[in-house]
Amino acid sequence: MKAHKILQAPIPMRWVGPIRISGNVLDEQLSVPLATYETPLWPSVGRGARVSMLCEGGIKTTLIDERMTRSILLEADDALAAHQAVQSIKARREELNAVVAQTSRFAQLIDMHSQIVGNLIYLRFEFTTGDASGHNMVTNAADKLIPWLLEEYPDLRYSSISANYCSDKKATAVNGILGRGKYVVCEILIPREVCERRLKTTPEKVVDLNIKKNLIGTLMAGGLRSANAHYANMLLAFYLATGQDAANIIEGSQGVVHAEVRGDDLYFSCTLPNLIVGSVGNGKGIEFVDANLTQLGCREPREPGANARRLAAICAATVLCGELSLLAAQTNPGELMEAHIQLER
Amino acid sequence: MKAHKILQAPIPMRWVGPIRISGNVLDEQLSVPLATYETPLWPSVGRGARVSMLCEGGIKTTLIDERMTRSILLEADDALAAHQAVQSIKARREELNAVVAQTSRFAQLIDMHSQIVGNLIYLRFEFTTGDASGHNMVTNAADKLIPWLLEEYPDLRYSSISANYCSDKKATAVNGILGRGKYVVCEILIPREVCERRLKTTPEKVVDLNIKKNLIGTLMAGGLRSANAHYANMLLAFYLATGQDAANIIEGSQGVVHAEVRGDDLYFSCTLPNLIVGSVGNGKGIEFVDANLTQLGCREPREPGANARRLAAICAATVLCGELSLLAAQTNPGELMEAHIQLER
Amino acid sequence: MKAHKILQAPIPMRWVGPIRISGNVLDEQLSVPLATYETPLWPSVGRGARVSMLCEGGIKTTLIDERMTRSILLEADDALAAHQAVQSIKARREELNAVVAQTSRFAQLIDMHSQIVGNLIYLRFEFTTGDASGHNMVTNAADKLIPWLLEEYPDLRYSSISANYCSDKKATAVNGILGRGKYVVCEILIPREVCERRLKTTPEKVVDLNIKKNLIGTLMAGGLRSANAHYANMLLAFYLATGQDAANIIEGSQGVVHAEVRGDDLYFSCTLPNLIVGSVGNGKGIEFVDANLTQLGCREPREPGANARRLAAICAATVLCGELSLLAAQTNPGELMEAHIQLER
Amino acid sequence: MKAHKILQAPIPMRWVGPIRISGNVLDEQLSVPLATYETPLWPSVGRGARVSMLCEGGIKTTLIDERMTRSILLEADDALAAHQAVQSIKARREELNAVVAQTSRFAQLIDMHSQIVGNLIYLRFEFTTGDASGHNMVTNAADKLIPWLLEEYPDLRYSSISANYCSDKKATAVNGILGRGKYVVCEILIPREVCERRLKTTPEKVVDLNIKKNLIGTLMAGGLRSANAHYANMLLAFYLATGQDAANIIEGSQGVVHAEVRGDDLYFSCTLPNLIVGSVGNGKGIEFVDANLTQLGCREPREPGANARRLAAICAATVLCGELSLLAAQTNPGELMEAHIQLER
Repeated sequence: MKAHKILQAPIPMRWVGPIRISGNVLDEQLSVPLATYETPLWPSVGRGARVSMLCEGGIKTTLIDERMTRSILLEADDALAAHQAVQSIKARREELNAVVAQTSRFAQLIDMHSQIVGNLIYLRFEFTTGDASGHNMVTNAADKLIPWLLEEYPDLRYSSISANYCSDKKATAVNGILGRGKYVVCEILIPREVCERRLKTTPEKVVDLNIKKNLIGTLMAGGLRSANAHYANMLLAFYLATGQDAANIIEGSQGVVHAEVRGDDLYFSCTLPNLIVGSVGNGKGIEFVDANLTQLGCREPREPGANARRLAAICAATVLCGELSLLAAQTNPGELMEAHIQLER
Repeated sequence: MKAHKILQAPIPMRWVGPIRISGNVLDEQLSVPLATYETPLWPSVGRGARVSMLCEGGIKTTLIDERMTRSILLEADDALAAHQAVQSIKARREELNAVVAQTSRFAQLIDMHSQIVGNLIYLRFEFTTGDASGHNMVTNAADKLIPWLLEEYPDLRYSSISANYCSDKKATAVNGILGRGKYVVCEILIPREVCERRLKTTPEKVVDLNIKKNLIGTLMAGGLRSANAHYANMLLAFYLATGQDAANIIEGSQGVVHAEVRGDDLYFSCTLPNLIVGSVGNGKGIEFVDANLTQLGCREPREPGANARRLAAICAATVLCGELSLLAAQTNPGELMEAHIQLER
Repeated sequence: MKAHKILQAPIPMRWVGPIRISGNVLDEQLSVPLATYETPLWPSVGRGARVSMLCEGGIKTTLIDERMTRSILLEADDALAAHQAVQSIKARREELNAVVAQTSRFAQLIDMHSQIVGNLIYLRFEFTTGDASGHNMVTNAADKLIPWLLEEYPDLRYSSISANYCSDKKATAVNGILGRGKYVVCEILIPREVCERRLKTTPEKVVDLNIKKNLIGTLMAGGLRSANAHYANMLLAFYLATGQDAANIIEGSQGVVHAEVRGDDLYFSCTLPNLIVGSVGNGKGIEFVDANLTQLGCREPREPGANARRLAAICAATVLCGELSLLAAQTNPGELMEAHIQLER
Repeated sequence: MKAHKILQAPIPMRWVGPIRISGNVLDEQLSVPLATYETPLWPSVGRGARVSMLCEGGIKTTLIDERMTRSILLEADDALAAHQAVQSIKARREELNAVVAQTSRFAQLIDMHSQIVGNLIYLRFEFTTGDASGHNMVTNAADKLIPWLLEEYPDLRYSSISANYCSDKKATAVNGILGRGKYVVCEILIPREVCERRLKTTPEKVVDLNIKKNLIGTLMAGGLRSANAHYANMLLAFYLATGQDAANIIEGSQGVVHAEVRGDDLYFSCTLPNLIVGSVGNGKGIEFVDANLTQLGCREPREPGANARRLAAICAATVLCGELSLLAAQTNPGELMEAHIQLER
């Protein structure tokens, strides 16, 4: 019966690049796979990639932080009991980590944060998770931590294994402020001449548009930590091509572009505080995904986490390529639509 | 060369259902295709679907509004000139609509909103776009409106064809407040007995969890109009299976669950103010997409827009199925992880 | 008994200025009263005022919009009934206005917006309210509209006279997007020489700081439409000195500074979308308030609303003075603290 | 000359109460001074106070956390240099604290958080500040930390002494998530009979209204951590009467009401994560302020910080009184306006 058979949704995919990437994670040039129905994305990212090849060091990517989170919801008798329990729990991180260690070789509890509302406890566990994005690993860890906590603190009661203070796949501020996924910054310094010849624009125009559109425009829209034009498009295409849980583009889309004229050049940076990617886990065993990850050099024998960090750096650089290209296009009236019309044919 | 060849990313897909749907758009029972790497989603939505079959009228879906938006950015000499220009432009909607009509048979300008910042004008055009989600249609319309505006208002200057006040694929408040995509509300009244037998929970537990997790939890996370557990997962899978621009799950994820105990039953509703879907346009011509849309009954000869509204209602009902199922699971300690472990095998 | 006697809290107050103001509301130079415990505010605003006297036209203030709002909460049987009721109610604005007219000579219903959540109706009434800020006027109007609505739509049920979709004195996006209070933009063009001599800074430094602090800094803080340094301080002091409901500084603080180097000069603008002020109503009859309003020229015989608009323009210009002065100070390491130390003595 | 003379703005003030308060800070009953132009606030808070006297333990207040913050903005050469500098700085808290100690006997650096955007460093210092609210203390500390940092890290450059990642007097998420001011939770358990007789409502009605208005209504308004009806009103009046910097009601207004029916009673809680108050500092030397603080028992010889914590607990309990009273009123159609009309006479 149809309803029980596993089928396939073959999304169009193309390799785009090469992109020149340097930084504290990798130093190479390589192409990236992008799966999308929005095929004008390919030449758009491709243009950014070509620019990267013309700039010294290409796109410098810096990995700042990494963690995966799960918040649980417990109830105490009142706020005071909640407060005392939280203080006690936070002081016992080593014991908690011993519980976590039973669930995974890779999961490690690195921090905890909490909020108390009335007698409710929102407790956010923050883990490193090796090469996995870590969704299941942290759920599994929480699943073991909860009974341990309920036994150690018999006055607490279970409310939920996920309390939305994680926050998974929802537009919130907590992920940017406390961290969730990889925090990556990409920077490129583009000579004016490259700007003019390849991007048909000037450093001044890109800087100006970024301020008025990405910073002020999003602000007026009531945006939440989202000063960019279309991070989401690149993230989606890269995530689909590499077997990621693409619903995490929601957090991923919350990042900020900062650009400046420096001397005669354009400094252009994309900060991505919430890039959730893994090189192992759900979906990674599918044949084409495995092939893509291998081709990207993210299936090498490395220390746990190194393949995932490499993937994050490549993903972030891809985002910069597409963001730069679209902003450049929007500085010129008419170019965007023309490009769409030409490319969709 | 690899970089130039179009390949495919075959995402696992399954038909789930049937779901019983009624309301002001359709009255049927039908299965839905879901493409995802997160395969536990299938049985989760499936459980919600089975519940829908046991409730009178199943899932009532009400379509409240539909529109697609594009904001442009213009500059005036100062705020006063900006204000006067905006007032004048808003008064000439019919003339603008004549310009829009040259670009599409389907696009129709139905409203305009604006923000003025210093001398900057953020002008948000709001269109109906027939059966298309409308991204390109509104870009095309804006592309023609801009030269017309610059000619009619020679003191205005072009700044950008997209000003982030649209807002496309970014976490903002404007889409929920002014509208973008289809605004759909889904409701279901679940007898206590069905709750207990099929969802292994009670109306009281679901209501309680919704308040503490979806409403208060998201609030504490600094969330923006996002009181739900995982709308994004169902949206992504449905969007991929039906050729949608899945980056729009970002807006789509911003919605609210409201649940109440009514008499002895559970009233459970999912409000989705920003559902961006189309039955024609980019991606819809791909063979499997076309087949899926046809199977869903969204390729019938109907008045413009009717197929897209049908698709939106089906999508929203699918979201409710998955949301209900996960919330029910989270009311029981341990169930979530067990389900994951069983299903992933 | 102490608990029943009305006492006084005498807040320190000083007149600061004169400020040179032009624009579509007034064209004058005048001093403003500021009541505050934070007395360094006086010289800070005073410095901005002196700058305004040295710039052509001083501070140009443009009033863009004015309205006061009240949202009510009604319940229907389901979302469809809610939708149909809202559509019908919106089509009967004239009838509603007749009901409103019974409650006040000045209140006039100019628009309505709504949100539907499940079967809940959030209905936002938007009024002009003459010279009053309008809090009570719109509550009174809502108080009469509700019974009328419940009689006309017997299937609707009362839930609340205020539904937080107004939104009064809370950090939300709706006020900026749909309007609440006066929407005022202030602009000034400051010659480089004035910048350097009076503000001890350069146009470039102020522009740079505004981008990095007000725009990006607030964004990273998860801010909501709040790209400014300290609008709130000036608003509080002005509101207290003129008998306003100063809790409305919460909405008032949500505004954006936009600055640019233009030629050799500094273009500096403060956009204040939610300035809630009145020249009549609660608190305005107190002797010193009345004297201050009179001194500001806001007690003259004018058409209804003109005195309040004048007050809003003056208030906004005052905000610009203080905002400019603090930003200038923060471009120089050490200046801020020195100023505080000197002034507090 | 008028512009140079210090005058007074005598705001109407009344003592309201007594309120019954218990918890981890104080256990007493006492009246509170409220200065406001909105005089209906007095009987509204008074009603809540009377309810507190009828409930066992009255209002239980729990102080969860306290800190005052200042963020500075530095620039590095690139993101990598920024990252390395931040890591190094965070590891040297003791050295930083030695610098801080030179500026105040009371300021103590207890934590640091950061954000990196391109090459920009937003560094948030978090201090305890004794009995002062701490605005000036942390500015002073930052003023000394900056030259120290610039000397220790010669590759960093000064950008601003305040980077809006603090955040002071602006609607943001960071304060709630990382902490700013006192974090206080107030709880009360109100017997049904008291609800009915004193508040003219039922536990069920209050719970229902809180969900639909404070939680869902604010959410639909695009609110930011602000699920309450009017915290701001009580905060403003209490702040003005006790010499606080009342512009901090902006952060203060960001809090959440959680209510439940428990057995036959109403559990009602107000969580206030960002209560910024001090018993010493700016404004506290003014005669009536000093008298009010003394009357509240906040000028006693106690360990540093104890008077300020006491003040915070009293303030929070006052907020609960007013919040409870207004919500109760809004459950009854017509009561709000009647109350206003009666009381304003």
